[in-house]
Formats: sequence, structure tokens, C-alpha cells
Amino acid sequence: MAKDMTLLWGSGSPPCWRIQIMLEEKQLQGYNQKLLSFEKKEHKSQEVLDMNPRGQLPAFKCGNHILNESYAACFFLENQYKSQGNKLIPDSPDAQALMYQRMFEAFTLSQKMVDAMYYNFKVPEEERHDSAVQRNKEALTAELKLWEGYLNKTDCCLAGKEFTLADALIFPIIAFMFHCGLSSERYPALAKYYTSLMDRPSIKATWPPYWKSTSGLDMLKTV
Amino acid sequence: MAKDMTLLWGSGSPPCWRIQIMLEEKQLQGYNQKLLSFEKKEHKSQEVLDMNPRGQLPAFKCGNHILNESYAACFFLENQYKSQGNKLIPDSPDAQALMYQRMFEAFTLSQKMVDAMYYNFKVPEEERHDSAVQRNKEALTAELKLWEGYLNKTDCCLAGKEFTLADALIFPIIAFMFHCGLSSERYPALAKYYTSLMDRPSIKATWPPYWKSTSGLDMLKTV
Repeated sequence: MAKDMTLLWGSGSPPCWRIQIMLEEKQLQGYNQKLLSFEKKEHKSQEVLDMNPRGQLPAFKCGNHILNESYAACFFLENQYKSQGNKLIPDSPDAQALMYQRMFEAFTLSQKMVDAMYYNFKVPEEERHDSAVQRNKEALTAELKLWEGYLNKTDCCLAGKEFTLADALIFPIIAFMFHCGLSSERYPALAKYYTSLMDRPSIKATWPPYWKSTSGLDMLKTV
Repeated sequence: MAKDMTLLWGSGSPPCWRIQIMLEEKQLQGYNQKLLSFEKKEHKSQEVLDMNPRGQLPAFKCGNHILNESYAACFFLENQYKSQGNKLIPDSPDAQALMYQRMFEAFTLSQKMVDAMYYNFKVPEEERHDSAVQRNKEALTAELKLWEGYLNKTDCCLAGKEFTLADALIFPIIAFMFHCGLSSERYPALAKYYTSLMDRPSIKATWPPYWKSTSGLDMLKTV
């Protein structure tokens, strides 16, 4: 079945990485894949647009099903391959409730990260304000403190001891932020989470190739 | 079990309404509930903060589980009460894939709606630009055209003939936009979707009380 799947992806993109982790977790190796370049604007190519009319990566096809939203792809794969590979939705209501709550809170985390990191990319020069930059940075700091508190209270993973769908979805964002200079000293629980999961086979096998050959960035150094 | 649930909510808030629809669909009437006023800033009250540290509505407790993210609450309820009330995750892979894809695309729709509608609320006066207002409006229009296209191709609901979790999650946003003046003439497929579902028992029973007594708004009249 994995031969019937195609993933067009970009290196280091958290949404792309989520699907790659998920495919490993569900033992669906051997899918068709193509690494595209954001810099060369290959995400706006006809090949991508044919699968994803928004012109974004990932573009993911599973049989005849188009699942470009990374959360959608991960939920679908978990549901279609329940008994294959690792089971990522726990049976225990406690773990399940926490898993769902965290995975959807992560939309706020992502949004605040994007607002803080891509301000110059998103806002035309004549509309930029230092006060907005400062506000976005403060909002991200407050959000990160919440997550630092969450991870201080759990064992290993976001919903307890077991790796769940919440980790497959959120680990790539956390890793991306450390790649962009997030401080391990100021966020020790986030750093512990990051280092404890980086050698998990599904994550190691899909580590963004460009991150191996380039040094980290410093956009989040002062957050 | 519904007696073990508490929902603090605000009238007309799509995230609150989602949980209310879901509780009806799963035959979980009789839960504890309290209607709070955004105008009076009751969502920042200690009662809310005790359940939802972000100071937002909904604040939802299901037994000991806190599920303030509306998507999280709906997923959890569907999973815990699979065989009670209506089954909202279809078995057919076709419908399931489409349901997941649409429900997560809706985050983009919500974001663009919020950017367009709450610009003055979110952006301090000295940072406002007419060019940004125009860009936000155009982005929402383009997004709505995508959804108009999606609904043109389906029978009744977002993932086909059956009402699914995608409808429970997305109907409140569409209804909110029509309440705010969205044009039925320019978006006939969205309007058809809206009117065909407004009398569904779960939706009718939870219709925002303030909408019954006040006339609609016109913030989206020109979109």
C-alpha cells in the first residue's frame, strides 16, 4: 500500500516532517517521495498545484485520497492502519484527553511562532512596526512558558509515558524552534523533551537533511 | 455521564457552539452549563481561568478531563461515545479522508476570517494600515471561493451525504459568517449548505440565543 502513496515535501518544514514520522511509525516505508526546494519556489510548481491547489508543502496522496493538511494525513493513517506499526491513539481516557488537548493547543503555538519568526516575510516593509515585533515576541515567550509547564509535569511525552499522535504532530515544531536558536537554558523541559525524542527511530530516520549539513539559525535566540 | 460535564460558553462563539452541537449529536444532554458574556469580560473571570488558563471560552470539563480546545473536545466525545447517538467518523475511507482534509483546512478559513473581521480589535490604532485591511479582505474572499467550490461538488455535507465531525466543526464558522452579513448571492453553495443544516436537531437546539433576538451584522457584507 505504501507504494500507492506519494509525498512531496520540503526539508525542515514541520508539517512535512509530521507525515514522514507518521509513515515510519506505521511501518509504511517505501512510499514515493520527492524533496522540493522552497528557495527555488518549487512548492508553486504545477506538480504541487496538481495535488495541492494552495501551492503548499506537504502535498500528500494516499491511493486516491488527497491529504495535504498534515493533521488530516496523520489522523487518516492512524485510522486506516490501526493495527500496523505503533498505535498512536491511547485507549486510556486520561492519556487520550490530554493528547487531544495538547495537539490542538499546538495550533496556537505554531501561530505564535510564525507571527514572531516570519514577520518580515509576511508584512510588507511600509507596514512594519517595532511595537508589533516586540508584541509577537512576548506572545511567543508566554506561550512557550505554558508548554514548559506542561512538559515539566509529564513523563517523557506530551500525554504521559507513551509516544502518541500529539508527539508526532508537535515534536517537529519544538525541534524546529531549537534549530532556530531556542535557548535550552531558558526552556529546560522543552530541551529535555527534544533531546529525549531525537533518537527515536521514526524521528532519526526522517531528520531534515539540510539540518545535518548546516549550522543552526539564531532567529529565536532572544525569546 | 453528561451530569459529570461542565461547559462554560459564550453565545455565537463558533468554538463553543461546536461542543454544544457535538453533545447533542452524542445524546449527552443534561450537562452543566453556564452562558457567560464576552462583553462583560466574564471569560477572564476566575471561574474560567480555573478551567482554562488561557482565559478563553469554551472552558469544558468532562469528568476530570479538561478539554478547552473545541476540536479536542469533539474528538474525545466521538471516541468515548462511539456507539451513542450519531456516529460522526465515517467508515468509508473516501468520506473519512475528505472529512479530515476539510476539518483541518478550516483552520485556514478561521484564521482568514479572524484577520479580516477583527483587525481593529487585534491591531493597535497606530499600527493600522488600509493596505492590510484590503489584503485581509482579499485573502478571505479567495479562501471562501475555495470552500464555495468544495460545497458545489458535494451532496449536502462537507464529506458527502452524511453529516460528519467536519460539519459539527465547520458549520458554526459558516453560520457565523452569514450572521455577519456574508452574501448568499455571491456564495450560493455556502448559503445552500447553511440553510440545509440549520434545522438539523443538534444545530437548532443550540442556536446562539443572542442571534434570535438581534438582527444580523454587516461586517462581511462586501466580502
